[in-house]
Amino acid sequence: MVTYMKTIIKSETKEIVIDTEDPFTIIGEKINPTGRKKLAAQLKERNFDYVRGLVLEQVEAGADILDVNVGVPGEDEVVLLPDVCKVVMEATDVPLCIDSANTEALAAALAVIPGKPLVNSVNGEEASLKAVLPVVKEFGAAVIGLTMDDDGIPHEPETRLSIAGKIIERAGKIGIPIEDIVIDPLVMTIGADSKAGRVTLQTIELVREEFGVNINLGASNISFGLPDRHTINQAFLGLAIAAGATCAITDPMRLSLTIRAVDLLLGRDDYAGRYIKHYRTLAAEIES
Amino acid sequence: MVTYMKTIIKSETKEIVIDTEDPFTIIGEKINPTGRKKLAAQLKERNFDYVRGLVLEQVEAGADILDVNVGVPGEDEVVLLPDVCKVVMEATDVPLCIDSANTEALAAALAVIPGKPLVNSVNGEEASLKAVLPVVKEFGAAVIGLTMDDDGIPHEPETRLSIAGKIIERAGKIGIPIEDIVIDPLVMTIGADSKAGRVTLQTIELVREEFGVNINLGASNISFGLPDRHTINQAFLGLAIAAGATCAITDPMRLSLTIRAVDLLLGRDDYAGRYIKHYRTLAAEIES
Repeated sequence: MVTYMKTIIKSETKEIVIDTEDPFTIIGEKINPTGRKKLAAQLKERNFDYVRGLVLEQVEAGADILDVNVGVPGEDEVVLLPDVCKVVMEATDVPLCIDSANTEALAAALAVIPGKPLVNSVNGEEASLKAVLPVVKEFGAAVIGLTMDDDGIPHEPETRLSIAGKIIERAGKIGIPIEDIVIDPLVMTIGADSKAGRVTLQTIELVREEFGVNINLGASNISFGLPDRHTINQAFLGLAIAAGATCAITDPMRLSLTIRAVDLLLGRDDYAGRYIKHYRTLAAEIES
Repeated sequence: MVTYMKTIIKSETKEIVIDTEDPFTIIGEKINPTGRKKLAAQLKERNFDYVRGLVLEQVEAGADILDVNVGVPGEDEVVLLPDVCKVVMEATDVPLCIDSANTEALAAALAVIPGKPLVNSVNGEEASLKAVLPVVKEFGAAVIGLTMDDDGIPHEPETRLSIAGKIIERAGKIGIPIEDIVIDPLVMTIGADSKAGRVTLQTIELVREEFGVNINLGASNISFGLPDRHTINQAFLGLAIAAGATCAITDPMRLSLTIRAVDLLLGRDDYAGRYIKHYRTLAAEIES
C-alpha cells in the first residue's frame, strides 16, 4: 500500500495540512488579474485596496490558502509580486500560493514570505525544472507540479503519470522531499474533448496510487465554453475529490459549500459539524 | 470481468435502456403524495389535472420514466393506482415505475399497463420476496430491490451486498432474469451518521462488481435535516453515478442538469451535445 503524504504549508503563524484526513484544502483563486480587468487596473496603479478586499472576502468564504498572481502585461512582476504578497500578508494570516511563470519574481516573493508557501508552478519541461526547482529548494517551499512537458499536455493518463514521476524525481535529486510536491493533473475543456474529464480523473487515481502525493485541481477549465459552467464545475470537483484530489485553486464563494458537502459525503465530517458551520458563515456573509 | 446488464423498461411505444452506455436514467419522483399535500388532496377528490401537470413538467425536464405512487391514507390503492396509471399513460408515452407496498395494488396496476414497467419495490424481507416477486414474474416486469431485510437496514456494505444477492437469487428461482433486477443500495441520512454516504457508495461498487446489475438511487434522503440540501444532493448524485449508479428516482427539474453534467464528465456525451440540448430545454421552460 502506498503512503499518502501530508503537505504542510505555513504562513508566519498558521499551518495548513493538505491530506485526506483533514478537510479538503481551498486555495482562493481571485487575486489573479487574468480576465479580471478591475484588478489589473488597480495593480497597474499600485492601488491595493481592491486586493485587500479580495483577501478578506475569500478568507471569510473559507479559503485556506490564497493564490497570488500579478501577471499584468507591461508590469514588472519582480517588483510587483513581492509587494502584493506583503499587502496580502498584512491583511491575513492565511498562507500564500505564489503564482508566476517568472522565476526571478518567484525568488523575489519567496525572499519576503516567512513560513512555507506553495509555489505555482513547475512542470515537466526541461527549462521549467531547471529554473523553478532550485528556487523552491533554496527557500524551502512546496511546489505544484503540472503534468505537461516539452511535448505539451499528453492525452493519456499514463503519460501524465510519468511526467509527475519525472518532476518528483528531479525535485528529489536536489533535496526537495516528495511530500512538498503537489501534482496538478491538468484539466482540459470537456466541450472540445469528451474524454477530458475521464483523463484527469484517471490521472488523479494513477498518481495517488503510484506516489501518494497530494493532488491540486484548477477546476474551472473543464467547463470553458459551455452553458451553466457552475453546475459542471460543482460536479467535477466532487468527482475529483472522490478520485483523490486534496486541494483546488478555486472560487471559495461559489464552490466552498460544495467542497464541504463532498467532505461530508466521503465521511470526513463527523455530525456534519463543519458543513453546518460553513453554511452558517456563508449565510451570515450574504446577509451582511 | 463482470458483465454489466442492460435493463429494458417499456411503455406501449417507448423503450428505455438502463445501463452505463446510454445516458443516466432519470425516474421522475413527483407523482407521490408523501409530503405533497396538494397532490394528496387532489387524489382524494379524484381530480387528476394536477397529476397531468406533474407528468408534463417532469417529462419536459428530462424524466425518462415516471414513478407513480398514490399512497394516501384512507384511499384504496387497489383502485386508485391503476386509475392514476391510466391517467399518466394518456398524458405521456414515457414508461412507468409503479410504487406501492401493496401487492394487490401492484397487480391491479400491472394488469392495465402495457409494455414492461418497473416495480418499486421488493426487499430482502421474507414477506416481501414471497409477495412481490411472483407478481413481477406474472406480468414480466422489472423490479427495484432494496438492500434491507427482516433485520432492518444493515450498516455494512458487505451485508447489503448479500441481501442484493438474496433478492437476485430468489428472483432467479421463479424465472425473473437478473437483468430485470435493479438494486437500490439505500441511502441513509448523513446528518445522523457521517459514514452513511460512504456505505452507500461502497455498496454501489460492490454490487456492480459482483453482479453487474443496474443500480437505482433514491438520492434525496442523504441530506435530510441539513441546510442547503440541494448542494448535498447534487454532490452525492455525482459521486454515486461515478461509483456505478445507473438510474435515480429524483426531481428532474432540480437535478437533471447535474445528471447530464456528470454523464458529460464521465465521457458519455460526445461534444457535450446532450448537455447543451438539455440546458436549452430547461432554459426555454423557465422562460415560458
